[in-house]
Amino acid sequence: MSAAQRRLAVGLEYDGARFAGWQQQPGLATIQDHVQRALGNVANHPVEVSCAGRTDAAVHAVAQVAHFDTRSDRPMRGWVLGANVELPPEIALLWAVEIGAEFHARHSALARSYRYCILQRETRPALLRERVWWLRTPLDTPAMHKAGRQLLGEHDFSAFRAAECQATTTRRRIDSISVRADAGLVTVDVTANAFLQHMVRNIVGTLVAVGTGERPPEWVGDALASRDRARAGITAPPHGLYLVHVQYPEALGIPQLVPFGPWAMIAGQSQRKPT
Amino acid sequence: MSAAQRRLAVGLEYDGARFAGWQQQPGLATIQDHVQRALGNVANHPVEVSCAGRTDAAVHAVAQVAHFDTRSDRPMRGWVLGANVELPPEIALLWAVEIGAEFHARHSALARSYRYCILQRETRPALLRERVWWLRTPLDTPAMHKAGRQLLGEHDFSAFRAAECQATTTRRRIDSISVRADAGLVTVDVTANAFLQHMVRNIVGTLVAVGTGERPPEWVGDALASRDRARAGITAPPHGLYLVHVQYPEALGIPQLVPFGPWAMIAGQSQRKPT
Repeated sequence: MSAAQRRLAVGLEYDGARFAGWQQQPGLATIQDHVQRALGNVANHPVEVSCAGRTDAAVHAVAQVAHFDTRSDRPMRGWVLGANVELPPEIALLWAVEIGAEFHARHSALARSYRYCILQRETRPALLRERVWWLRTPLDTPAMHKAGRQLLGEHDFSAFRAAECQATTTRRRIDSISVRADAGLVTVDVTANAFLQHMVRNIVGTLVAVGTGERPPEWVGDALASRDRARAGITAPPHGLYLVHVQYPEALGIPQLVPFGPWAMIAGQSQRKPT
Repeated sequence: MSAAQRRLAVGLEYDGARFAGWQQQPGLATIQDHVQRALGNVANHPVEVSCAGRTDAAVHAVAQVAHFDTRSDRPMRGWVLGANVELPPEIALLWAVEIGAEFHARHSALARSYRYCILQRETRPALLRERVWWLRTPLDTPAMHKAGRQLLGEHDFSAFRAAECQATTTRRRIDSISVRADAGLVTVDVTANAFLQHMVRNIVGTLVAVGTGERPPEWVGDALASRDRARAGITAPPHGLYLVHVQYPEALGIPQLVPFGPWAMIAGQSQRKPT
């Protein structure tokens, strides 16, 4: 007689630098492999884990959300502590909740937020290596911010889509996009219902061409309208990118971790919203 | 006929996690080894580098200052770029200036500032691993701040001195000490004319005993007055500690790097003061 199946949602933080991204791939070390192995050890049976945003190689997360099914009955604290003992130091489970079988980490998500970090200074960073895109060239961040506004709303984002992207539609809705500078650190925050492959990194590469003065702000709107990848900018490197938030319908009861302060993401800080 | 000898001062940032501290030691990888090798390669002759604060194993720096002598004539930019090519990714040279032979990175320093970072949350950090002391126990930071004030001024700090400390006097002058909390991150900032070995870490371990409620704030003053190491708290782990500033007489012309914002240190950010 088999025990009842239950679905669990979990929150994850990781430093993606030494992993080949989220998605399982033969012969490569991926976040999904480690999380499945750790949770499978706690469950005492193999589990399959699905996440909200399949981050690329070297991309980080402060608030990834994932779900899996299990026949094992453990206290939520047991899942969290057990998994954190099994996981490598670069990956940490933040929370676990039991959730209805209709929940799906990817399909139930209403929106995702990413932050991209650029360090603008003369010398390469030591403490922030593999955490930011280091650029020597000064950036006109108000021009970048202005340029980014042209991407707001629902559009065909083909110009910002990786060649190998397998999405069936290229339409996405950007709900907010902003570029801020705090002394040497430039952060690009983007929230959308969903993203095409490399979409944030291609947007950042394009905005940087505006920031350096190589292109005028209007060029970004023209690139978008062209639907031609060759008309937009370069792909920014992966290690400046962080998945910082996944939004779900409130009724689902997913813990909402909100990064606090402008440095929150770099510092890997997040905390529960006061309830 | 030998070329004229010149003295150079340099600024350094490093992630100390995988090094056995600043000081050269047979058979161990130290920051001093790497910096001497890198600058020696640029100079094309062996150099000996002296620093302002000899950080322990696993301790970080965002603004270490050091000096060395050379017979080689290179543009300052050449020293910086050349050294950064040779240095491992965890160590970066921030600036170089030529300076009078009377300058000594350690002896000319008027004061040093250290920051200690504690992450208080339920689960271990992934992005901040080896960058903070992770504590599950909530901390009463106003009580820690109040307790720390008892250490202000010139005192015999024997109670906060490592057994192996070789300083000839145990008197030091603490110019400022504060404890702040920004959500889960607790930072302890201490500036003193100089520090005994493990002094900041022993102060932090002592203040944490107050923060957890294990000891009353007055206990810190009693521990100080006792001059007995056994009467103070534990030694906080090294990886939460950062050398953030070294102060010199302004006339010396040492670039003053000021960390910006409360997260500056963790983010490894520093910039020159506007001139």
